[in-house]
Amino acid sequence: MGHYAPRGAVGSSTSKIDEVRERFARSGFHTWIGMRLERVEPGEVDVALDVEPHHLNLVGLLHGGLIATLADTATGLAYRTVLEPGTRHVTTHLSVTFLSPGRADTVTARGKVVKSGGRFGYAEADVVGPEGELLARATATFAVSPERAGQ
Amino acid sequence: MGHYAPRGAVGSSTSKIDEVRERFARSGFHTWIGMRLERVEPGEVDVALDVEPHHLNLVGLLHGGLIATLADTATGLAYRTVLEPGTRHVTTHLSVTFLSPGRADTVTARGKVVKSGGRFGYAEADVVGPEGELLARATATFAVSPERAGQ
Amino acid sequence: MGHYAPRGAVGSSTSKIDEVRERFARSGFHTWIGMRLERVEPGEVDVALDVEPHHLNLVGLLHGGLIATLADTATGLAYRTVLEPGTRHVTTHLSVTFLSPGRADTVTARGKVVKSGGRFGYAEADVVGPEGELLARATATFAVSPERAGQ
Amino acid sequence: MGHYAPRGAVGSSTSKIDEVRERFARSGFHTWIGMRLERVEPGEVDVALDVEPHHLNLVGLLHGGLIATLADTATGLAYRTVLEPGTRHVTTHLSVTFLSPGRADTVTARGKVVKSGGRFGYAEADVVGPEGELLARATATFAVSPERAGQ
Repeated sequence: MGHYAPRGAVGSSTSKIDEVRERFARSGFHTWIGMRLERVEPGEVDVALDVEPHHLNLVGLLHGGLIATLADTATGLAYRTVLEPGTRHVTTHLSVTFLSPGRADTVTARGKVVKSGGRFGYAEADVVGPEGELLARATATFAVSPERAGQ
Repeated sequence: MGHYAPRGAVGSSTSKIDEVRERFARSGFHTWIGMRLERVEPGEVDVALDVEPHHLNLVGLLHGGLIATLADTATGLAYRTVLEPGTRHVTTHLSVTFLSPGRADTVTARGKVVKSGGRFGYAEADVVGPEGELLARATATFAVSPERAGQ
Repeated sequence: MGHYAPRGAVGSSTSKIDEVRERFARSGFHTWIGMRLERVEPGEVDVALDVEPHHLNLVGLLHGGLIATLADTATGLAYRTVLEPGTRHVTTHLSVTFLSPGRADTVTARGKVVKSGGRFGYAEADVVGPEGELLARATATFAVSPERAGQ
Repeated sequence: MGHYAPRGAVGSSTSKIDEVRERFARSGFHTWIGMRLERVEPGEVDVALDVEPHHLNLVGLLHGGLIATLADTATGLAYRTVLEPGTRHVTTHLSVTFLSPGRADTVTARGKVVKSGGRFGYAEADVVGPEGELLARATATFAVSPERAGQ
């Protein structure tokens, strides 16, 4: 599948990337979960989680809800880097296929934008362990709309 | 859509329900997230979350990852109540459609089994606010297999 | 889950229903597949297929692609009945879970709108056999936009 | 995402590929739809459709149900090439995201296995136009079980 080719100028990409970093840093949710922002490029964002005991289910595997949370975050932030000025996005559909038991100490979701548009967008994520082993694959669709004041 | 009609005897349903309650109570993950087990019936489980500031995203709405986590938990536990003896299940696919902004103080995921079988199962969840307003709809598929020793 | 409550006046609902019937009648695709329009109500459309040998896969079951086609058609037409004047919709995501082998002589997809809006909509479908037995469950999301001249 | 690495011997891959070709050739469904089998490799199958007027919806685009049918066929056949001897598979979930209007004269679905196993499998498909432009992305999950006599 083709890599996302950003249409914006370098300057606007840079400011979008800075904005993603700044928003991540002040998110109480991300801090509480324990996520780290690993990489931000135009159309691509990686977020990682160092797995701790409270992240596990009763059979000792990373809870599927956290795999979904990582995928949701990585795809949503990846899409934020490609938003046209004056627009905003909300995730409308998230789909996660669980492929291998979540046994890794560190888990990374690699979000990548596949399609952006004025009304609709689409991104995907690989959720992988430390050696790149595939734990889950996810897809996300977005509704894009004009930004309203105050948001 | 038809309601799930459990095939097992009353006795086994009761023990399955007790098992779900017992497992939920000793789950460090559920405690950490802040989920409550609201209702357990054969084929149906409701879990609720009292929304706190660290559950919110930067625009003040319940994070989509938590909506997915609630749906994953409600469907997975609902399926556990209908497992045939000697079998276990893992979620293979979770799909969530976000329908309304998560503005509620308390959010409940109502999981319900639609189809159970020896190899494959399927459940759905409504994620609703305090007045029953629909925030999200979710589907989950399960792979069912013989229980192995030690699990 | 709540039933869709149409907001439009009776008059506009009637004309939308007539429009769905008229469009279905002149669709060469629907004729070629062999679909019948069974029922049109505000927010709900049923389409049926009398299964013929060329609809079957090599093990004698209704091909999954046709189950997806029925679900896509029923949800898309159901959404058409609730479109606000001056808007149009396209399906952005279709998800089908296959629950039972497609052994029925006649298969019906019952589409129902769950959520409509100015930019985003959501519908579901049951795909059932003659006795109402559930063969598949489907979900569809829509992007809604202003109607352009000529469409 | 990693390419599927088949575990079987060359001999068994060859016979699986021949089996896919042979089954496709005698499928009345595929002939009726108008699909061509373009490519069969271990873990990968491409199917193509030359678009004709009866394949179009009322606005002149390839019907979404046919895009789903192509994706269902390409992923299902791709998985067939990697089945362990003595097992069979059924598609349990098909998910299609529609990314661009289906305006192409010829449309190809490129199915690829991502994960195979004794009970569960997963494949994806790109649906593309003649220049490789992406029209849709699809995912499919499979339940795998022992082959029964006569199937």
